[in-house]
Amino acid sequence: MEIIGEKINTSRKEVAAAVQGRDAAFIQELARKQAEAGADYLDVNSGLALYPEEEAEDFSWLVPTIQEVVETPLCIDSTRPQAIAAALELCRGQSMINSVNGDPESLASILPLAARHGSKVIAIPASREGGIPATSEGRVAIARTIAAEAQRHGVALGSVYFDPLVLSISTNHDNGLLFLQTLTALKQEFPEARTVSGLSNVSFGLPRRGVLNRSFLALALGRGMDAAILDPTDRKLMALARATATLLGEDAHCAGYLRAFREGRLDP
Amino acid sequence: MEIIGEKINTSRKEVAAAVQGRDAAFIQELARKQAEAGADYLDVNSGLALYPEEEAEDFSWLVPTIQEVVETPLCIDSTRPQAIAAALELCRGQSMINSVNGDPESLASILPLAARHGSKVIAIPASREGGIPATSEGRVAIARTIAAEAQRHGVALGSVYFDPLVLSISTNHDNGLLFLQTLTALKQEFPEARTVSGLSNVSFGLPRRGVLNRSFLALALGRGMDAAILDPTDRKLMALARATATLLGEDAHCAGYLRAFREGRLDP
Repeated sequence: MEIIGEKINTSRKEVAAAVQGRDAAFIQELARKQAEAGADYLDVNSGLALYPEEEAEDFSWLVPTIQEVVETPLCIDSTRPQAIAAALELCRGQSMINSVNGDPESLASILPLAARHGSKVIAIPASREGGIPATSEGRVAIARTIAAEAQRHGVALGSVYFDPLVLSISTNHDNGLLFLQTLTALKQEFPEARTVSGLSNVSFGLPRRGVLNRSFLALALGRGMDAAILDPTDRKLMALARATATLLGEDAHCAGYLRAFREGRLDP
Repeated sequence: MEIIGEKINTSRKEVAAAVQGRDAAFIQELARKQAEAGADYLDVNSGLALYPEEEAEDFSWLVPTIQEVVETPLCIDSTRPQAIAAALELCRGQSMINSVNGDPESLASILPLAARHGSKVIAIPASREGGIPATSEGRVAIARTIAAEAQRHGVALGSVYFDPLVLSISTNHDNGLLFLQTLTALKQEFPEARTVSGLSNVSFGLPRRGVLNRSFLALALGRGMDAAILDPTDRKLMALARATATLLGEDAHCAGYLRAFREGRLDP
């Protein structure tokens, strides 16, 4: 499984303050900690910026600031093509875009950026008008549009990460099952594409979210999910992810599991 | 998921001593604690007995001793038909037998007992000569024999709990995957039957077994496993089981999860 570290996000107060105050040390510490904990990508979000120009400026500071201290590739998280473009210009290595959706404007603006920069792209099977379809079929239908448009723009399906989308089970107790069904359907329909999810939505509004999030990660990995957006410094979640990969036969001679144990990374 | 409490087992030293010394208070405490923790069945094993007569006598003391304090039905765990027969005579409610396997003598002696007492029965797709087949197909082939014999003896498939069998991933890192594939194959071939597993074998010989066992329980439940033989007083494992059932849509309005939280049973 690929891990996309979620912590550099201005929806978190301290991060918003650090971005506004250009506190490089704070941001670099967040980057370093996530990289050390095993992140394969670092998500970078400055979505609190009021104007596209401001967000582009934030990225123009954030990207080099982070790249100064880690080699980990970045996942540029924004709804504004102009800001994403500014960020991608500065990214080293193969970056990722978070995200494109089924809206014609999103497809027409994001996919050319992915093609030009050779970026991977997270694809959200929803649209502004229709919102998030309530059925697996509805989501797969939008994914079909995104897949066709990606290929038309020269973005290979192997670089597209479909997110089955999960809403909290506190609003509908079938939301977890719907996610898993959609995950399976996406993998069947697009075997070359990847799948990804930000898992923690599933537990919104419920107590003991960590228990739900860990179980949900195991269930999703058991269905073949390829990547997750999560907090790689959450030691219990990472131990669960490590154990699950080992149980699924993805860890020759359990070597990765045993190494994690020796390094003190397997919290009980 | 149905939970079969595993703790009354003479492979544990204190239990062996309690059975030998006819320490009713010790056994009753084990029974009560497991019942309170949510066990649907209590496994009862006195496999250290040297002779069938001795084991039958142990059961003749154990079964009424346990039934004095809990209503939970019992799962009679033995390889000796004579001992099982003695236990079943004393069992209240619908008991379970652990287990029948593919050997002709096992089938011919256990299945009539299950039929006579209306017991459920755990079915092990292995045999004395052939051991545990190394492939899913080999296990399903033995399961087919057990299913046919069960029906011939008047035991409905709905009362048969197939165990896909799991060996430790420390001896072969594909053992977890083999279990999951066998589970899926058994459910496809025998949709009316149930499935069950003693999960903890999977982590034998590895450190931090709890992390592996919890992940494995989530993976197995995600594939539709119906029952598990486990320690219901393991609070982290039970919290994970509760969360997983809720995520799989088996908990209307998350009521069971929220109740478990209010009752302080959801360890973080």
